[in-house]
Amino acid sequence: MYPMPDPAGRSLDRKGVLDEINKFVVAALAIGLTSTAMGQVIGKAEDQIRWRQSAYHTMAWSMGRIKANVEGTYSKDQVIEAANVILAIVNSKMGALYQPNTNTGKGWKETRVKPEFFADRETPGKVAQGLGKEGNEMAKVAATGDLAAIKVQFGKLGEACKACHDKFRKEE
Amino acid sequence: MYPMPDPAGRSLDRKGVLDEINKFVVAALAIGLTSTAMGQVIGKAEDQIRWRQSAYHTMAWSMGRIKANVEGTYSKDQVIEAANVILAIVNSKMGALYQPNTNTGKGWKETRVKPEFFADRETPGKVAQGLGKEGNEMAKVAATGDLAAIKVQFGKLGEACKACHDKFRKEE
Repeated sequence: MYPMPDPAGRSLDRKGVLDEINKFVVAALAIGLTSTAMGQVIGKAEDQIRWRQSAYHTMAWSMGRIKANVEGTYSKDQVIEAANVILAIVNSKMGALYQPNTNTGKGWKETRVKPEFFADRETPGKVAQGLGKEGNEMAKVAATGDLAAIKVQFGKLGEACKACHDKFRKEE
Repeated sequence: MYPMPDPAGRSLDRKGVLDEINKFVVAALAIGLTSTAMGQVIGKAEDQIRWRQSAYHTMAWSMGRIKANVEGTYSKDQVIEAANVILAIVNSKMGALYQPNTNTGKGWKETRVKPEFFADRETPGKVAQGLGKEGNEMAKVAATGDLAAIKVQFGKLGEACKACHDKFRKEE
């Protein structure tokens, strides 16, 4: 078996390489990624907090738009526009905006993330995957124009948002 | 010719209807829509201001990601993820977040929009169309993975952002 160099200059055998990959994947899931690929890290802590607050509020606007359509006058285009915004954001690997030094601090306002989000090695990845799944499904269903199915999927997407809020967001 | 009722209870002949439609389209363009279809209005003035600030900052994050890719290590997937967020937002008809009562007021912070934005009947529509064009093109170019073309298009998209900032955004 050939030893492989790692970035820290150590030599690793195959078992060592697999262990490193495993640690990497666990770390990726722990910061809430929807995929095992690492997201791209840019910005200072306060930028990351402001950007994630912005992305959630952009999704909240979009959820409000879908709600107005399913409860009031339905427009296929409006639901598609809003669902596509949510789709792009849930697929943007915004877990990268949860670097360890963003556990406290101020973006637009103090972050509401709970310490458990950074301590829990499993649940953040799971809730993020849930949001990814329902966000992708929402865009598919929106494109069909089937209002009854849109209502059902909108409910599921709302539950996926709530799953994270209940566990990891402080009350205001 | 049959008279048609309008929402204000007046009767309009065909010429009157066309005049009304024309006024509607002009008003739609004036609030910065990228299409002649009206966007969907939800939320109070402070919500609309906060949502538009959020959407711009979500785009700023995405622009920062593309910049890091074209100036540093290039990842096709990262550029696509970021470009798709911009694409969805420029196609979301966020001009609807510029209702007349949002000319002043506070979302996350005081709005930086200049009064000219609401007074000018032409330019806001034009700059919004420019952003829509370059944002749609950015997503197409990102998908090709052609780094040289991505650099060029990123520059054009930045210019489209700046066109509106220069004209309609107050300095901080």
